[in-house]
Amino acid sequence: MSNVCLPLRWENGALGLLDQRLLPGQEIFLTCRTLEEIHAAIRDMVVRGAPAIGFTALYGMALWLAGRETFRHAEWRAAGEYLKTARPTAVNLMYETDRTVAQALARFPEGTAAAEVHRHVLADAHEHVEALRAKNTFMAETALQELTGLYGDRPLTFMTHCNTGVLACGVMGTALGVVTHAHARGRVAMVYADETRPYMQGARLTAFELAKEGIPYHLVVEGAASWLLQHKQVDAIFVGADRIAANGDTANKVGTSTLAIVAKHYGVPFYVVAPLSSFDFNLASGKDIEIEMRHEDEILAWKEHRVAPVGARALNPSFDVTAAEHITGIICEGGIVRHPTTVTMARLRSPL
Amino acid sequence: MSNVCLPLRWENGALGLLDQRLLPGQEIFLTCRTLEEIHAAIRDMVVRGAPAIGFTALYGMALWLAGRETFRHAEWRAAGEYLKTARPTAVNLMYETDRTVAQALARFPEGTAAAEVHRHVLADAHEHVEALRAKNTFMAETALQELTGLYGDRPLTFMTHCNTGVLACGVMGTALGVVTHAHARGRVAMVYADETRPYMQGARLTAFELAKEGIPYHLVVEGAASWLLQHKQVDAIFVGADRIAANGDTANKVGTSTLAIVAKHYGVPFYVVAPLSSFDFNLASGKDIEIEMRHEDEILAWKEHRVAPVGARALNPSFDVTAAEHITGIICEGGIVRHPTTVTMARLRSPL
Repeated sequence: MSNVCLPLRWENGALGLLDQRLLPGQEIFLTCRTLEEIHAAIRDMVVRGAPAIGFTALYGMALWLAGRETFRHAEWRAAGEYLKTARPTAVNLMYETDRTVAQALARFPEGTAAAEVHRHVLADAHEHVEALRAKNTFMAETALQELTGLYGDRPLTFMTHCNTGVLACGVMGTALGVVTHAHARGRVAMVYADETRPYMQGARLTAFELAKEGIPYHLVVEGAASWLLQHKQVDAIFVGADRIAANGDTANKVGTSTLAIVAKHYGVPFYVVAPLSSFDFNLASGKDIEIEMRHEDEILAWKEHRVAPVGARALNPSFDVTAAEHITGIICEGGIVRHPTTVTMARLRSPL
Repeated sequence: MSNVCLPLRWENGALGLLDQRLLPGQEIFLTCRTLEEIHAAIRDMVVRGAPAIGFTALYGMALWLAGRETFRHAEWRAAGEYLKTARPTAVNLMYETDRTVAQALARFPEGTAAAEVHRHVLADAHEHVEALRAKNTFMAETALQELTGLYGDRPLTFMTHCNTGVLACGVMGTALGVVTHAHARGRVAMVYADETRPYMQGARLTAFELAKEGIPYHLVVEGAASWLLQHKQVDAIFVGADRIAANGDTANKVGTSTLAIVAKHYGVPFYVVAPLSSFDFNLASGKDIEIEMRHEDEILAWKEHRVAPVGARALNPSFDVTAAEHITGIICEGGIVRHPTTVTMARLRSPL
């Protein structure tokens, strides 16, 4: 399990949230005791990452109940609607809030003691955290078995892109979860982490997590990929996914596809680790995935400090699509699909 | 010719140097009237780039003579030795200073009027600038003819890495010289310039030059290479070289090899532009080129602003080696060598 940096923790009837806006410079937990405080924390991006926001919402609804005598359906519904206004585009916030609201309405009649509903909602939140941990542990173990098949039991050198750890996922993480899992088994020799321009998720967040876990690592610039894969023995590259098409084409943080092409050139295995919720079998291939273009100032300035000349322009695609042919394997709750194609991916369509 | 940003200009008996330490935020020319001021400008990196430093040295020696009545051999020699202490590792500083000192000693007897020597040294400096301009223009024209052969007369879309323009070379530039030359012929539709982590030569210097020339451009992060070459019609990529081996393997700013591998994957022509002084036929291949590892703080912080956690480590290779097999052509004063190998490169060994 993660040593230190779970970004949310339930303690003494309150939710502690690691203020990710201050990372890596300061590591401060904000304590939320009311739904209003949870709302503000989600709105102001104290907490980020879809699963972590979802968990925070569940604990927020539990906190709302803790301050009450009696469970009133109309008030409960209104509390849920209020919470959902914190970040209107966060799918997990909507999904988890609606789910817990509906579940409590169905199970507890009007006038039930709020304490009873509180216990139920809180237990549900804990269960959801544990369920994700179990899912991510399964994926990490699947990856580790794959690597053991390739390399035996020796310590391994990993490379990663962006941040796919505990800070993004709330628990353990996907691609970075493989690294922390392998580390817990004494199997990590070194991790090379892309700094991940322009937003520096690698330098700010992945480095923070690796340092906390005591895992040896070096940051590298993305341009160093060719030098690194040629001169250092990198055993495998692990990345996450924002969306995976039916043929295995994978949208992920910009730079992923560039790295995958270089990896293939040097024969370094390249794995995607992502839950089935990231798969979209309605997309025949990555060609149909729309790429978000973000603001050019992410490239032109570092925080308030201008880097490029005034008036300079930049093109800032936030994601790219890695062709399935460059992916050695995709790992999810359904196991591993090696050499993904529409045919090999098809077995994941059936319910587990 | 360059519109604006020649980094050094001789005017009214003094040398104006564009203070490159302040780019792109401020554009200030420092006026040097004495050898001491030239010494300080080289030492403090007001001027950078090997050819530009060499030219500055020549003008510095001319300035020393301007303040004198009589040419005294011992004083002249001492002035040269003093100038060379400004940056002890700058090869061009040593070479050009030694050359102009020896030439004047051989040509002008002790006691010659200093004004006569001054005129000669100054004319020599001007000639050297013009000779480099002619050389770089020839390389740029060679490149443009190559592209015309591939694409006809239509406007072209270029991609570049690092800074290889007027700011680095003193005049015109190598790879970026191709772009400005093509622009002067009305042949540039768009330039995509890598920001070039970690030192941001692309964002700071290439963007500055392109903006000054009025050439349309967008900066991109290096990780965007795959997305860019897949989604935008990039006609050719041009890069410079720090060192070229006998088989065509090319050492250049880190990220060049990564870009070349991605370019080959997408079938985008990839050219190296460099003077013969960058070629080293004593090196059989790029394997023999030592890569400078620079300080990790270049990656971990942006100027005084820490990006990565305190205690974070980074690996910062400053250069990489692009395999000859990934290079479409190498362009130098000897013309173009397509598909460089030890065999095709051999003709460059003979004197031109």
